[in-house]
Amino acid sequence: MDGVLYRNRSPIPGAPGFIRFLNSRGIPYVLLTNNSTLTPGDYRKKLLSMGMDVPEGRIVTSGRITAIYMEENLENGPVFVIGAMGLVKEIELAGWEIISMEDMQRRWKDVMHVVVGLDPGLTYDKLKYGTLAIRNGATFIGTNPDTTYPAEEGLYPGAGSIIAALKASTDVEPLIVGKPNKPAYRVLRDILGEEEIWMVGDRLDTDIAFAKRFGMKAVMVLTGVSTLEDVEESNLRPDLVVPDVGALVEYLKAGEEDGGE
Amino acid sequence: MDGVLYRNRSPIPGAPGFIRFLNSRGIPYVLLTNNSTLTPGDYRKKLLSMGMDVPEGRIVTSGRITAIYMEENLENGPVFVIGAMGLVKEIELAGWEIISMEDMQRRWKDVMHVVVGLDPGLTYDKLKYGTLAIRNGATFIGTNPDTTYPAEEGLYPGAGSIIAALKASTDVEPLIVGKPNKPAYRVLRDILGEEEIWMVGDRLDTDIAFAKRFGMKAVMVLTGVSTLEDVEESNLRPDLVVPDVGALVEYLKAGEEDGGE
Repeated sequence: MDGVLYRNRSPIPGAPGFIRFLNSRGIPYVLLTNNSTLTPGDYRKKLLSMGMDVPEGRIVTSGRITAIYMEENLENGPVFVIGAMGLVKEIELAGWEIISMEDMQRRWKDVMHVVVGLDPGLTYDKLKYGTLAIRNGATFIGTNPDTTYPAEEGLYPGAGSIIAALKASTDVEPLIVGKPNKPAYRVLRDILGEEEIWMVGDRLDTDIAFAKRFGMKAVMVLTGVSTLEDVEESNLRPDLVVPDVGALVEYLKAGEEDGGE
Repeated sequence: MDGVLYRNRSPIPGAPGFIRFLNSRGIPYVLLTNNSTLTPGDYRKKLLSMGMDVPEGRIVTSGRITAIYMEENLENGPVFVIGAMGLVKEIELAGWEIISMEDMQRRWKDVMHVVVGLDPGLTYDKLKYGTLAIRNGATFIGTNPDTTYPAEEGLYPGAGSIIAALKASTDVEPLIVGKPNKPAYRVLRDILGEEEIWMVGDRLDTDIAFAKRFGMKAVMVLTGVSTLEDVEESNLRPDLVVPDVGALVEYLKAGEEDGGE
């Protein structure tokens, strides 16, 4: 979403029209983000405030992917979350028992799964109890591999940075569910069905790499992180590069007139 | 010290006699620890309470090594410390200006050096400002590479775990001064002079590796982390394995009687 539909709190020109186009044509779509600090409901509100009306079910965060992955793959049991409220809510919503930081001193040996995402409230004690639980045999799940994310003052540490600390202290390789990994693709596929998927993104190393890895059509927009020069210097070749999602609408409409889908 | 002279707060049998032996014979020695949370003064008190009288100048922490390394190699300028009071004190004592966490929002662009050690008071904001400063060009120094350390409930995250988070968020390789790295050896050499150095330690992967790397005689005691089975399975061959430092005294006395040094 960020860098494709909006930047900070301003919609990218053409983005509201892009969402209207998808809605009116009944084209199935998913808005996918590696951010786990907000819930799909939070994103729905944010998008609405910028004139984009997206059903909550079409918004997938790495927190949602985590909850879905856990439900499908892990044994039921107490969870310790190092992450923001958005992540905690998703896991609670899926019915897992969450052991709070306050109870960890007494209960860390009960923890069966440790979930790690971006946590602006990170403390040493969270790392400590996460380490003890994982070393005690708990599953180690990461929301997304991004080591940084862009913010006001520059690049801030991302989920991948906190995951790196725990990887070092436990010697355990985490299962990371977000882009560009398979659990994220599985969720897309389950919502969108067996049709051809077009992955529209602004980052070569995550979005375009993700598309190529799973046989999706890679569409790159130039309103976010990567530039046309980056594309020229990279081995990753998007199938289509457009200035913005507004131009993508024009491209799709032209295809319709030519008798395409 | 821990695992060689004492465990928790109890002296290892023979350790007070070992220190008395070194002191009475006038054998130059250094007690070297990768722990940066306490100062040499704190260690002197701790050792005294267990019957070991060691001059402060013979105790070297990774915090002290950091301060010495900085003095010899880095341009003077403001420092941001992610670490415990023991580390902060060493760097302040060496005359560096330390920018406190409270001032970082206003002053992170002034930081010239970021020093990272074990910090029981770690927060996300410390990682954030450390990341901003290093990405802004500040030097990145780590006290020691240990990813864990043994504590009451099990293995806790060590300095190396916090360093790993910042390495991930900055893409910068830190300069790590503690064992088994060169700055630690340089400090030993400067205190002990050009004579043959015997490195007495309880850990194969750090102490014995450190000894081998810098041509010191590697003496292993079996009162700490590594066992005799570990020695047999390892490629690292100590020059001498003794049950404890008490036995090392007997070994040295026998050498004296044979007319050796």
